[in-house]
Amino acid sequence: MSLVLLRHGESVWNAENLFTGWVDVPLSEKGLAEAKRGGELLKSAGLLPDVLHTSLLRRAISTANIALDAADRHWIPVRRDWRLNERHYGALQGKNKKQTLDEYGEEQFMLWRRSYDTPPPEIELGSEFSQDADPRYADLGPTAPRTECLKDVVTRLLPYWESAIVPDLKAGKTVLVAAHGNSLRALVKHLDGVSDDAIAKLNIPTGIPLRYDLDENLRPVTPGGTYLDPDAAADAIKAVANQGR
Amino acid sequence: MSLVLLRHGESVWNAENLFTGWVDVPLSEKGLAEAKRGGELLKSAGLLPDVLHTSLLRRAISTANIALDAADRHWIPVRRDWRLNERHYGALQGKNKKQTLDEYGEEQFMLWRRSYDTPPPEIELGSEFSQDADPRYADLGPTAPRTECLKDVVTRLLPYWESAIVPDLKAGKTVLVAAHGNSLRALVKHLDGVSDDAIAKLNIPTGIPLRYDLDENLRPVTPGGTYLDPDAAADAIKAVANQGR
Repeated sequence: MSLVLLRHGESVWNAENLFTGWVDVPLSEKGLAEAKRGGELLKSAGLLPDVLHTSLLRRAISTANIALDAADRHWIPVRRDWRLNERHYGALQGKNKKQTLDEYGEEQFMLWRRSYDTPPPEIELGSEFSQDADPRYADLGPTAPRTECLKDVVTRLLPYWESAIVPDLKAGKTVLVAAHGNSLRALVKHLDGVSDDAIAKLNIPTGIPLRYDLDENLRPVTPGGTYLDPDAAADAIKAVANQGR
Repeated sequence: MSLVLLRHGESVWNAENLFTGWVDVPLSEKGLAEAKRGGELLKSAGLLPDVLHTSLLRRAISTANIALDAADRHWIPVRRDWRLNERHYGALQGKNKKQTLDEYGEEQFMLWRRSYDTPPPEIELGSEFSQDADPRYADLGPTAPRTECLKDVVTRLLPYWESAIVPDLKAGKTVLVAAHGNSLRALVKHLDGVSDDAIAKLNIPTGIPLRYDLDENLRPVTPGGTYLDPDAAADAIKAVANQGR
């Protein structure tokens, strides 16, 4: 069973060093190029997805559209679900990472960014970067997240993994999941059995497909999976770790 | 019940005046702009699709992706099916329309382009513009079309209309169908009860959403529907009618 994880290319807010979360910003020019390159990597590896799962956010949707077009797989079935969304960043959404670091200090900043179970403060309903009036989340009603820690992401992701993605894998399909830094970290945590502490140090680079071959128990044949461009992945992982500096 | 039909923007082969059919060519620069404008028309009309149906061809898929992104509806569910594909143009696929007109004469040319039940000659299996090795049609096996007349398109389209699109309409959803000149003509023929003769003269312009409000019997409230930009539609319909001249 082959699973391919693809983190969206750089967004305009990644480029501006802002906390994004559920704010639905587009890809930057660099992000568009990363998405295309991701598709070219899939094609040249002969790793051709049979089905696509994405979040409801345009940076993941656009990345998947562009990558699949480049791989001549634009025509495969697709499912989108909020459970693949980026972590909701609560009241930090729309704030500059560097300013937040300066204002709150290293310890608080890293707690919000990387602790497993400490969410940022909740976003205020009706505020500029809140999604409470967004029609795509209308079905969630008052249960819609207003902030999330990574543990919350794991909790809301796993039902979708079990009910939607696993059946596709068990049907023998090559599954592409185009999603976000934290929803993919949540999935990798589950797949590789990463501890709550160790997941803090795991970064997933943008635009480089990460391949997992899974055994019959859905355990990775190669722990950590395999990036289709390992050198670029290693460089990018370092860059992600230094964000906000 | 609201149904919105959207013919893909100009493709690179439309621009080169070639018969396209099932050949999977991309949008031209003009086509990309038309797709964006189509989405802006949807947004300014407040006609926001809840679900998308497309063909398996990238000119329709890209048009829908771009239009929905422009309308902030990129996140809606999507289904794709070969039954929404353009008419298979048989042995004419890849041929220049003007050259075909000169070679075969006006009568034969118009018979292939616009007669209801005369398909062009079948495409040769394994030839350059045949789709017999294309994985997206593998499930069709030997029943995959090798040429089609408009009547054939009606025949293969209607099961999808009944089984996939009508249930979405009956569930109260605003349905966007992003497809092709001939698959949309086939659908309009069915909706408006257009005769086999009269359908020959009906042209659908690229990139301008065509809205149908349907009554409880799925009959159009306004026969022929309503283009979101009627003046641009009238101009474009004239231009389509003069193709190959």
